[in-house]
Amino acid sequence: MPMERMRLLVPEMRELLEANQVEELKDVIASFEPIEVAEVFEHFSEDEQLSLLKDLDLSTAAEVFEELHVEEQMRLISGLAHQRAARVLDEMSPDDRADLFEDLPEELVSRFLALMKQPEAADVRELMKYPSNTAGGLMTTEYASALEEVTVEEAMRNLREEAKRLEVVYYLYVADRVGRLVGVVSLKQLVLSDPDRRLSEVMKSNPVSVQLEMDQEQVAKEVAKYDFLAMPVVDTQGRMRGIVTVDDVVDVIETEATEDMQKMASMEAVDEAYLRVGFFSLARKRIFWLVALLFIETLSGKVLQIYSGAIEAVVALAYFIPLLTGTGGNAGAQTSTMIVRGLATGEISLRDGSRVIVKEIFMGLFLGLILGSFAFGRAYWGEGNMALGLTLGISVVAVVTMATLAGSLLPIFFRLLRRDPAVMAGPFITTLVDVASLIIYLEIARRLLF
Amino acid sequence: MPMERMRLLVPEMRELLEANQVEELKDVIASFEPIEVAEVFEHFSEDEQLSLLKDLDLSTAAEVFEELHVEEQMRLISGLAHQRAARVLDEMSPDDRADLFEDLPEELVSRFLALMKQPEAADVRELMKYPSNTAGGLMTTEYASALEEVTVEEAMRNLREEAKRLEVVYYLYVADRVGRLVGVVSLKQLVLSDPDRRLSEVMKSNPVSVQLEMDQEQVAKEVAKYDFLAMPVVDTQGRMRGIVTVDDVVDVIETEATEDMQKMASMEAVDEAYLRVGFFSLARKRIFWLVALLFIETLSGKVLQIYSGAIEAVVALAYFIPLLTGTGGNAGAQTSTMIVRGLATGEISLRDGSRVIVKEIFMGLFLGLILGSFAFGRAYWGEGNMALGLTLGISVVAVVTMATLAGSLLPIFFRLLRRDPAVMAGPFITTLVDVASLIIYLEIARRLLF
Repeated sequence: MPMERMRLLVPEMRELLEANQVEELKDVIASFEPIEVAEVFEHFSEDEQLSLLKDLDLSTAAEVFEELHVEEQMRLISGLAHQRAARVLDEMSPDDRADLFEDLPEELVSRFLALMKQPEAADVRELMKYPSNTAGGLMTTEYASALEEVTVEEAMRNLREEAKRLEVVYYLYVADRVGRLVGVVSLKQLVLSDPDRRLSEVMKSNPVSVQLEMDQEQVAKEVAKYDFLAMPVVDTQGRMRGIVTVDDVVDVIETEATEDMQKMASMEAVDEAYLRVGFFSLARKRIFWLVALLFIETLSGKVLQIYSGAIEAVVALAYFIPLLTGTGGNAGAQTSTMIVRGLATGEISLRDGSRVIVKEIFMGLFLGLILGSFAFGRAYWGEGNMALGLTLGISVVAVVTMATLAGSLLPIFFRLLRRDPAVMAGPFITTLVDVASLIIYLEIARRLLF
Repeated sequence: MPMERMRLLVPEMRELLEANQVEELKDVIASFEPIEVAEVFEHFSEDEQLSLLKDLDLSTAAEVFEELHVEEQMRLISGLAHQRAARVLDEMSPDDRADLFEDLPEELVSRFLALMKQPEAADVRELMKYPSNTAGGLMTTEYASALEEVTVEEAMRNLREEAKRLEVVYYLYVADRVGRLVGVVSLKQLVLSDPDRRLSEVMKSNPVSVQLEMDQEQVAKEVAKYDFLAMPVVDTQGRMRGIVTVDDVVDVIETEATEDMQKMASMEAVDEAYLRVGFFSLARKRIFWLVALLFIETLSGKVLQIYSGAIEAVVALAYFIPLLTGTGGNAGAQTSTMIVRGLATGEISLRDGSRVIVKEIFMGLFLGLILGSFAFGRAYWGEGNMALGLTLGISVVAVVTMATLAGSLLPIFFRLLRRDPAVMAGPFITTLVDVASLIIYLEIARRLLF
C-alpha cells in the first residue's frame, strides 16, 4: 500500500487494539481496504489476530481473512473456536474458501463442513471437485441469474434482494428452465430497458462462455480478449455453474507469466513467492535441468576431443570458442524468447509457423553478417591470421543463423506436440547451440586452415 | 474467438453484406461481441468495411471500430466521410479515442477536433496531454461522480440518467465542492443504503487513488493488489481526473511481462506483435545487445591468450571450456530470472536484498557441489587425469556460486540505481559469467596442474 496510508494505519490499529477500543478499531478498519488491513494484521501477534477476528463483525472478518496468505489462514482457522471459524468460513467468497479447503487437512475439512451452513458446505464440496488450474477451480458461485420469462422489473427487484448476498454484481445471466445459459444482460441494459419487457427480449443471446475444464491460462486469455468483468462457466450440457471474475484473471496472467519465465530459464515452475519457497524445494526445482544440460554439454568436450588435432596445431582456435558459442547462444535466446512469448500471448499461432521460421532465418543471416564482421576483425587484427579470421567470421554467420533457426523451430515444434514451448528457450537453446557451434567452427577450420 | 462461434459468424456476415441486407446484418452483429465482429471485419475489403461503418448505428460502429488495430483505424477514419468519422469518434471510449489521436497525423487531428462535439473534442485535448505509459495516459474520463451532500436517492436517480452515457458503472465517486476525491460508494452499498442518507454518511472515506503521472506498471500493480474494477486517478491537488479500468490493466500486465522477457533476453522491448514488426526495425532492436555482448566476450579470448601456456601444455583443458561456461551461465540465468521477476511482481523488495543474496550464495554452493561432482567424474574418467578432474570439479563449484551471486546481485544493484533490473538477466549474466569462469578455471588449473 502507498507509504502514507501505511503510516496512518499501523500505529492507529496498534494503539486501539492495545487499549481494547473495539468500536473505534472497527471504524478505522472500515475506512481502509481489506488487503491493507490484512497487511497490517500480519504484523500482529497471534493472540491479537485471533481477538480481532473474534471482535470484528463477520463480514469484515471474512474480508480481511480472505486476503491473508493460505498458511496464515490455516494457522488462524485452527486457533479460532470452531463455531466462530465456521461462521467466518460461511461468509468467505466461494472461490477463496475452496482454495483454503484444498490445503486444509482432511480432518479439519470434515469438521468444518459439519459446522458450516448447509448451502455453503455444499458449495465447498462442489468447488473442490475441480482441479485448481481450470475454469471450475477458478470460478465462484456468487453470481446473479434469472429465467428468461422474467420481466425487467421483476429481475431488478430480485437483484436488489440479492445484492446483500453478492459482493459485486457484474451481469445478470439468463437461463432456461433446465439451467442452460441462454443470454446475458448488462446492468446498464437492464436499467435502460422498458420494465415490462421480458429478459428474453432484452438480453444478448448467444453469450460467450467457457467450459468447466478449460485451462486457466486459456480462460484468462478469453476474459482479457473480451474485456469482460466476469466470464460464465458452463458444463458440457451448457448449464451455468459459476463465473470467473476479472480480478482472479489478473492473478492468473501474472502467475502464468512468472511460470513461463521460470521454464524459459530452464527450471521447474515455482508456485510460491521466491522468499516463501524453502531452500531444498527450490534447489530441487533447479537441479534437474542444470544436470541435464551439463550432460548435453559434455558432448562439446567430445567434439573438441575429436578435433583435438586441429586445436593442438592452432591453439588460437580455442581462444575464440567462448565468443562463438556465446554469440550464438545470445541470438538463439533472443529468438526463442520472442517466439515462446508470442505463442503464449496468442500473437503467434501455429498457422504462422513457416512465416516465423523464414523471418528468423533471414534475421539470423543478417545479424550474423554484422556480428561475423566484428568477429573477423577481432581474430584477424588480434592474431594477424587471415585464415583464422575468415574461419571465425564465417562460423559466426553460420552459428547465428543456426541459433535463430533453432530458437524459432524448437518452440513451434513443441507447441505442435502440445507441450509447453517455454522449456525450449534460453539455457536449453544456448546449450544445444554450444555443441552445434563447435562442430560448425571446427569443420570450417578444417577446410580453411589445413 | 472459439472456432464454433467464428464458423457461425463469418459466412453469415459475408452473405448478408453481399445481399445488402443491412437490417439483418445489424441483428447478427448485435448478438456477437464487438471484438468478434472486429475480427471478422478485418477480413473484409476496404469498401465493405466502409459501407458497414456507414450503415451500422453509431454506437455499434464505434464499439467495433474501437476493437480494430490502430493502423486499421487510421486507414478507415481517413476513408470515411469526415462528418461520419467525427460522429464515430464522438462515440468512442475516451481512452481508446485518445490512443488513436496520438497516432493520427497532426493535420487530421485538428480537422477532426473541429468537427467533433465540443465536450468530446475538449476531452481528447485533455487526455492527449498525458504520456501514454502513465495513469493519465491509461485513464478514461467516463465515470460516475456526485457531491457528498447529495442523498442516496438523488444519486441513484442521476446514475440511472448517466447510465446512457457510461458504458459500465463500477463505483460512484464522491467529490467535494472543489472536485477533490473524498469518498467512494459501491453500487451494492448504494442499493442497500437508506435513500434519505447523504453520500458523505454511506461512502467509504479515505479512498485509494493513484496520481496522474504514476507509471502504468505501478498503476497495474495497485489495481491488481486491491482487486478494484477501476482505480480513480487524481492530480496533485487531489482532484479527480479519471479512472483506470481493470480491462486496460490486464493489457498492461501482459505487455509489461512481454517487455520484461524481451529485455531479459537482451534485446530492446518490441512494442508491437511479433508478426507486425518490420524486419529492419526488429533487427535494430536485437543487434545492439548482440554486438555489445560480443565485445564483452572478446575479453574471454584475451583471458585464454594470457593463459595460452597452460592450454598448450594441457590441451584437454580446452575441451571443458564449453561445459564450464555453459553450466555457470545456466545457473546464473535461473537466478537472475527469478530475482528480476520477483522484483517486477513486488514479491521481492529491496529490503529483502541481503536475504536473497545469502540464499543464492548457499544455493550456488549446493548446486555447484552436485554439478561439480558430475563434472569431476566426466573429466577424471574421460581423460584419466585426477588433477584435471579436480580442476574442473572445483571450478564448477566456484563458477556456479559466482554465477548465482552475480545473478542475484546485479538485478538488485540495478534496482537500487532505479534502472530496470530486467536487462541484468539471461544473456547478459551468461556473457559476464563466461569471462569470469575462464579466469577462475585457469587460475585453479595453474595451481593444481603445474
